[in-house]
Order: sequence, then C-alpha cells, then structure tokens
Amino acid sequence: MAAKHRTVFFISDQTAITSEVMGQSLLTQFDGIEFRRTTLPFINNMEKAVAAREQINRCFREQGERPIIFCTFTDPEIRRIVETSDSICFDFFDTFISPLEQALETSSSHAMGRTHGMVDPNSYHCRINTVNFALFNDDGASLKQYPRADIILIGVSRSGKTPTCLYLALQFGINAANYPLTEDDLGSPSLPRALKPFKEKLFGLTISPEHLQRIREERRPASRYASLLQCRSEVDMLEELYFREKIPFLNTTTVSIEEIATTILQETGLHRRLF
Amino acid sequence: MAAKHRTVFFISDQTAITSEVMGQSLLTQFDGIEFRRTTLPFINNMEKAVAAREQINRCFREQGERPIIFCTFTDPEIRRIVETSDSICFDFFDTFISPLEQALETSSSHAMGRTHGMVDPNSYHCRINTVNFALFNDDGASLKQYPRADIILIGVSRSGKTPTCLYLALQFGINAANYPLTEDDLGSPSLPRALKPFKEKLFGLTISPEHLQRIREERRPASRYASLLQCRSEVDMLEELYFREKIPFLNTTTVSIEEIATTILQETGLHRRLF
Repeated sequence: MAAKHRTVFFISDQTAITSEVMGQSLLTQFDGIEFRRTTLPFINNMEKAVAAREQINRCFREQGERPIIFCTFTDPEIRRIVETSDSICFDFFDTFISPLEQALETSSSHAMGRTHGMVDPNSYHCRINTVNFALFNDDGASLKQYPRADIILIGVSRSGKTPTCLYLALQFGINAANYPLTEDDLGSPSLPRALKPFKEKLFGLTISPEHLQRIREERRPASRYASLLQCRSEVDMLEELYFREKIPFLNTTTVSIEEIATTILQETGLHRRLF
Repeated sequence: MAAKHRTVFFISDQTAITSEVMGQSLLTQFDGIEFRRTTLPFINNMEKAVAAREQINRCFREQGERPIIFCTFTDPEIRRIVETSDSICFDFFDTFISPLEQALETSSSHAMGRTHGMVDPNSYHCRINTVNFALFNDDGASLKQYPRADIILIGVSRSGKTPTCLYLALQFGINAANYPLTEDDLGSPSLPRALKPFKEKLFGLTISPEHLQRIREERRPASRYASLLQCRSEVDMLEELYFREKIPFLNTTTVSIEEIATTILQETGLHRRLF
C-alpha cells in the first residue's frame, strides 16, 4: 500500500523554528503518513502573507486536500490573511496567548521578532563564547581552560563527546570541554593527571562495543582501532574506571544528542543559560 | 518598582525541549515579569509524575501563586497526575493532538519518546557526519571536501562563520564549510582560486565595522587587527567583493544565529535534513 501524503507548512513572521519544533513533535505521533514539509519564515508583512496564502491555495488546488499549517504569528492582521487560505491552520501563539494573559494577569506585547531574535545581545555573545570554548577544548586539545569549564566530558574515541559538547554550547550556553581517554589512560590505576583536579566536573559517555565498532570501522576500515576486540576491551576498562572513580555516566548507544544533553543537565544540576 | 516573579515549569516524558522552545516563545511576549524556569525532563512513569506534582505544589505553597506549567505528554495517565497539581497547566500536545487527528483522519500513536529520540538512526548518523564536516572544513582548514559541501560561508575573521556552520550542521543536517577572506584575498581583483569552482555554493556574511571592532578587541586588545580603521577597510572591500561577484550575503550585526541559518536556507533554497 502506498503511503498517504500530506503537505505541511511551517509559517512565521520570524524564523519559524518554533513552529517547526512544535509541529514536528506533533507529526511524529502520526504513523503511515508521509509529510511534505515547507517552511515559510519571515512572513512579516501583508504582501508576503498574501503570497504565502496563494502558495497554500495552489497546493490545495493541485492536491485536492487542504494543507496543514503550523504557525506562530504575533500580528493578528498577518495571521488572518494566512488563516483565510484553503488550509487547516493551527496557530500555536494564538491558541495560548490569551489563556496565558489571563494566567499572568497582564497583556502580551504582540511584538514581532522576539523569540529567537537579539532580545538579549548577551545571549548572542554567550553563545559565541561557549562555542569557542567547546572548539578550543575539544578532544583534550587544551587543558588550560578547565577551571572555566562547566563540565568535562570523557570517553573513548568516537563515543559522541564532540557533538554533545557543541550542542551544550550552542543550544544551552554551557562551557563544555571534552577529553579522550586513551588505552594508556584506561590501563592506569588512577585518573589522568590533567583530570584529577576537576573530578567533580567529569561526566562519562559510554557506548556498546558493537556500535562503537561500526562507527570506527567507517573511519578506519579494517584497523585494530576498529576491531570488535579492541572496542570491547576499551569499553570494559572505561566502565570499570567510571565505577571505580564514581563518575556519573551515560550509555549513548540508542540516545539522541538532545537526550544526552538533557540527561547531563539533569544529573549534574547544571542549568541552561540560553533558551 | 520590583519586577514581578512567576515560576514556570517545562515538563515532558521526553527531553522537554519542545516545551521549552514553545513555552519560551510565548513568555517572550510578556514584559515586566521575571520568570523562574525549571525543567523536569523524562517524567515517564507514575512515580516521577507524583514527585513532579509534589514539587509544583510545594512551589505554590511557598509562593502563594500557582506556577505555570508548559508540558508535552503523550501518556494521558501521566498528564492527569501533573494536571491535578496546584498550577495553571498548558499541554501543547493535548491541545493539538485531537484536532490534528481530525484533520488527518487518523489516530495518533500516543507513543512516548519520539520527538527527539532515535526514531531514525540515520538522523543521528547524519548529524554526526555534518558536525564532523563542519569541524573539518572550518576556517579554510581544508579545501578537499568542497565538492561535498552544501554551502560555503565566506567573510572576514570573526564575522560569525563558525557558529553558523555548526548550527547548520547540528540543527539542520547541512554540510557547511567556511573560508575566511584575508586582506590579501580582499585586495585581489578576483575570487581566491580555491573558491572559484564552487562559486554557486558561496554565501557571504558581513558585519558592521563597529561591531566587528568590539569582537576583535576582546580577542586581541589594542592590535591593528582590532582597530576600527582596519575593520572598516576589510568590511568595505568585503562588500565590494560580494557586489562585484554577485554573491548573496547577509549582515549579521543584529541577527541571531537562528535567523542567519534560516535566512541562508531561504535564500539558497537548501532544505533542512533534520527536524
């Protein structure tokens, strides 16, 4: 049986990232439908809104089925234009803003361009600095900034440290360093000297040896580094070290980067500095 | 006058990132209130839901005002427990899932752990690969992979190329390289040789000389590199080059990384590969 198709638009006067995140979360709850997604960001004046409506209506005429619209408009005039298209329209802002006004006993500002904008220039600055921190302190490249680190991820090569650090930096505004544990480190009865003074900042990643093997195999095919024997031995020693040193750790084998990052915050008590 | 305070919880059986993004977007519409935010991710069984309810109720007793809850629960049993707390509760899923079921003429799966999970192992893989691509091709470090690049960002040093490339990689699954234009490049009557074969992949960033000066000043105080004269001269030559070579470009001075990334997608016609 051929999959059903449905066209979905994410529309906003801003980046439409909120519509995408929220809409996509909802769509994952529907199996068996193939969604064709179009994002229309920066629909911030009447002219663009009219053009968006035409695009939606064209879609309806071609496909005979009303497209689904997920949108976040702050300006009711612009929203009205999009709403009058041949579509089924869900506005995430409109639905919640007035109950929220009631709950907070105040009116909203209906200001455009707020959510991911430069509301707070410090947040742009914070993010650039944390990204630079993650890059400078990637893969044990430098140890000098560890006193400034919020967290230091450890693990064997290819266990997901780098993308997790970058995610923590970009999305959460956290100073995350990472240090690769080599075979020598793992064979030693104590923590690497560089890490000892920062033990309370350490968080371990581990991974199933089979999964590690597949990742390493792609990088250096048929090498000792990628052999299952080697991966098993490293992971065994690694987990032994985490238990021995009482370092909190997480198995990343079936976990997304968002889940790794969120779990780290939860277990360490760190708070995100960016929203 | 002291700012009003209000406690906000973001709660989910998953990472709660969707609740955070959506809730935060709504909160930016309310000025003059200082929100105290707490995220409770992975509330995925009754026991954790009861503990969350107790935490919310404690908050209410201490502050005398019902906390605002933004949540996305797929399991109605768990949601019911949280909803019965002393709070004002907005469930983003519950609100939209049944109108969406109607629109799509099918039932939702009510499955937990979908939105940012490992639904598609390819998306994890895609992301790791695009992050590696961005790191490997950062700052003109390598030119060999340009044939595989989806986009090559160009601009002067410190104009925001690296964080934008990492954002495109991590959030959108796009292979983004970046190449810094030096004074020599800018003084030349033609594009750098390495870039010529990839002209259609180039996208320029520019920035106000004053802003550039402030960023560079932090990095190398009182240097020629950070002088306003130098920044002005580089930016002038840079924009001249964009016009001359007809390279699309964006001024990043007052723009967030999300806005830069979204604008790049819009102007180039690239599509995000990750949601």
